[in-house]
Amino acid sequence: MGRAKESSLDWSTSPGADFLQLRIADAPPGGLANWLADQLRLAISDGRLPLGGTLPPTRVLAQDLQVSRGVVTEAYQRLTDDGHVAGRGRAGTVVVAAPVPAAEPLPPTTTPVLADDVFSAPPGNDIFDVMRAAPARWDLAPGTPDLTAFPKSAWLRAERSVLDRMAPAELGYGDPRGAPALRLAVARWLGRNRGIRVDPERVVVVAGVAQALGLMSQLLRADGIDTVAVEDPGSLGARQHLQRAGMQTPPVAVDGNGLDVAELAASGHPAVMVTPAHQFPYGVVLDGQRRRDLLRWAHDGGVVIEDDYDAEHRYDRAPVPALRGMTDERVLYTGSLSKLLAPALRVGWMVAPDRWHRDLVDAKRFADLGNPALTQLVLARLMESGDLERHLRWMRRRHIRRRDAMLAALHQHLPQAQIHGAAAGLHLTVTFDDGVDDGVLARTALAYGVKVHPLSWHSQRASRPGLVLGYAASVPSDITEAITALGKAFR
Amino acid sequence: MGRAKESSLDWSTSPGADFLQLRIADAPPGGLANWLADQLRLAISDGRLPLGGTLPPTRVLAQDLQVSRGVVTEAYQRLTDDGHVAGRGRAGTVVVAAPVPAAEPLPPTTTPVLADDVFSAPPGNDIFDVMRAAPARWDLAPGTPDLTAFPKSAWLRAERSVLDRMAPAELGYGDPRGAPALRLAVARWLGRNRGIRVDPERVVVVAGVAQALGLMSQLLRADGIDTVAVEDPGSLGARQHLQRAGMQTPPVAVDGNGLDVAELAASGHPAVMVTPAHQFPYGVVLDGQRRRDLLRWAHDGGVVIEDDYDAEHRYDRAPVPALRGMTDERVLYTGSLSKLLAPALRVGWMVAPDRWHRDLVDAKRFADLGNPALTQLVLARLMESGDLERHLRWMRRRHIRRRDAMLAALHQHLPQAQIHGAAAGLHLTVTFDDGVDDGVLARTALAYGVKVHPLSWHSQRASRPGLVLGYAASVPSDITEAITALGKAFR
Repeated sequence: MGRAKESSLDWSTSPGADFLQLRIADAPPGGLANWLADQLRLAISDGRLPLGGTLPPTRVLAQDLQVSRGVVTEAYQRLTDDGHVAGRGRAGTVVVAAPVPAAEPLPPTTTPVLADDVFSAPPGNDIFDVMRAAPARWDLAPGTPDLTAFPKSAWLRAERSVLDRMAPAELGYGDPRGAPALRLAVARWLGRNRGIRVDPERVVVVAGVAQALGLMSQLLRADGIDTVAVEDPGSLGARQHLQRAGMQTPPVAVDGNGLDVAELAASGHPAVMVTPAHQFPYGVVLDGQRRRDLLRWAHDGGVVIEDDYDAEHRYDRAPVPALRGMTDERVLYTGSLSKLLAPALRVGWMVAPDRWHRDLVDAKRFADLGNPALTQLVLARLMESGDLERHLRWMRRRHIRRRDAMLAALHQHLPQAQIHGAAAGLHLTVTFDDGVDDGVLARTALAYGVKVHPLSWHSQRASRPGLVLGYAASVPSDITEAITALGKAFR
Repeated sequence: MGRAKESSLDWSTSPGADFLQLRIADAPPGGLANWLADQLRLAISDGRLPLGGTLPPTRVLAQDLQVSRGVVTEAYQRLTDDGHVAGRGRAGTVVVAAPVPAAEPLPPTTTPVLADDVFSAPPGNDIFDVMRAAPARWDLAPGTPDLTAFPKSAWLRAERSVLDRMAPAELGYGDPRGAPALRLAVARWLGRNRGIRVDPERVVVVAGVAQALGLMSQLLRADGIDTVAVEDPGSLGARQHLQRAGMQTPPVAVDGNGLDVAELAASGHPAVMVTPAHQFPYGVVLDGQRRRDLLRWAHDGGVVIEDDYDAEHRYDRAPVPALRGMTDERVLYTGSLSKLLAPALRVGWMVAPDRWHRDLVDAKRFADLGNPALTQLVLARLMESGDLERHLRWMRRRHIRRRDAMLAALHQHLPQAQIHGAAAGLHLTVTFDDGVDDGVLARTALAYGVKVHPLSWHSQRASRPGLVLGYAASVPSDITEAITALGKAFR
């Protein structure tokens, strides 16, 4: 009765192992150990089983192949006698030598190498990878907080607690908007610290501001918008991300009061990206009148992308609430943990106006089905327990000392520099009188061992020459040495 | 001498707190505690400070505002007297009641709700979210391994070890291709278990196969390809991702030997996505002759996307090496940890032909700057230590018992079903004689408490009616009950 039977499989049903796809049906009768040793030699010689690789335990491989354990032991012994593998006690049997010269050489790797003229050519897509790979004694590239302060113990404690309590289904596919616990924690964080009142259902967890800019561009394109004006100078990285996502990024000037909103309004551009709480790279705050002007521009139909990238880091000035707290329907808001905790976490958040929320969820779903769950749940605990705020206060005290060390060293070793934006953030910007080529200066600095960004990287129009100097990720003594070296490079 | 001075800030430099953006300059002289209590009441009433939210420690807020601690203590005391907040010992001061009715109601959430007719309408973009949210006694939706088996202890051990040893710079922005340690571990894994020899420099870590399909589509589009033929039946999810990325996805038939390569060749389509090791949803293996035919088609100019989605899960048959192991230059290969460990990790990998490698790195960089580092380093340890292979063997034993329970229950309670693809994987597929509407059947099953996929979801052309039944994520007794209920639903 019934036809509930397995449909026939054409593929062999004889036993075998995933390990090297060994198929016992291929072995000659009576020569199993020889055959197995040959297969292993072949895999070592052609690189499938590399130096340092481990062979499976004899018991396991024998079971997979459905042969006696003696067959596997004998094959391993032959390779051991040849000197190709060696028993390493509890570490198992390890490949220690290849039996024949390696096969044809692999193509050269794509690891970027810093060309001598990287600072004279316009920066390419991989400029930040190239910079990261460049060897240097001191790294003053901006954008990174104090990473030695990462709260490892609190992180592990939170992770143990999360793993103890989580339901198995939380390890499955999840809500593309992110884990409910983190969306709630972010909504509360934004309420407490950024003046934004938002329903946790409207928070979308994303893989940092980089991903947020790509998702926003999808929403804008669907609305017929292919232009996002940007601050000039303004972040090169953000501009590259918008351009890659199909946006034009015309410049709008920045002065001591922030974005020139009158220029924006006169330009007719449909959208703008701003850093109102702490302009990158100048560090100015969008002042009260400009905020009102920008909000009026937005209410007249403009779209504002608010990149709230390091608003929580401030030292000598009052806090600045987010624009998103003042108007809901024209602001695409994004922030992240990259500057609060660590860029390598790749966690940020977005809040979109109601009319775009559903499309945003779709965009995030099809980007990657949502952020990884475990990290989100750990972060939710750190945000709700107060650990993150404590960490932030602690970092702030360290950042102030580092900032002060940089200011003191600049006064002493680079008195020509005019300093901008030192009251907040993770970096400051120095400018020089015209006549200095900041690309040449950055290249010379690297030759002296100091990694910095030339201000011209972050400028679309001709700008005053300058350097962007990150201080948060270096200890004060290193900062002093680095600025001393920079002073020599300047001369 | 020197102009090294801070450029003037227009924004107020008076002290204040990030918490609620309190600005002491706004307070009337002499009425600090009153003013602070009012600000807190306002924040509680408008939702910025929600029920359950915590107030900062008095010492901290006093320091931020540069007022005496007594001012803050007095303000907190007033709210406590009102009954709005309460001291909770070490947990701090917590909001327990809102002083006025909540502000205007928030718009309804977008949490999807399972409509009664979800199985009669064509599945939309959010179909899997809708399914996940649907309440059901038994969840036999396919695609999830045994998540209760997740190796929590090994994970925490590996994470502690990673955090102990990692350099601070590893918490910064990293290589968009992924952490070198994980790329090496994946290259070795692919060599050992999938017959693929690949330079770790060519491995790109991605956020699962979902992201891989989007990145691949970018590469194809840049080459003028806007069509990827897909197996029919074949994964609805994969098809949705390709379509969202701008690809047309015409169907090519699948039979007992896998993809009908003759139909593919006759169609003239430039690219195809296949699941050669374990076809989804039928579970057949692409047989030897078809593999040779497909490789010939590829060498004649076709592009093959190989989704190696659950090749490591096999029970009664020999392993099947990846197509990518047989030809390098025409196969875009992708695999992931979603079926090996947990989908919520969002970790997969890609290997592209040489000519596309650089563009792939660009695409990944601009998608999200690379996967999160910590998870990658933990996974590298689990893969290199043998923990992942041990975990896989353990899961395999559990999956076999679950599969066997499903087969036994199907024989008993659904003898009308013809069973496909039970020799490997995390699911099996049953088909019925024509005349059954599998959408109606899936809806009825849900009414009986069982969540399943109708086969028609995964079919573009008219197909035999059927169901796709995941067994890996349920214990045997639940499987038996679920199939019993399914049998009732069928009658």
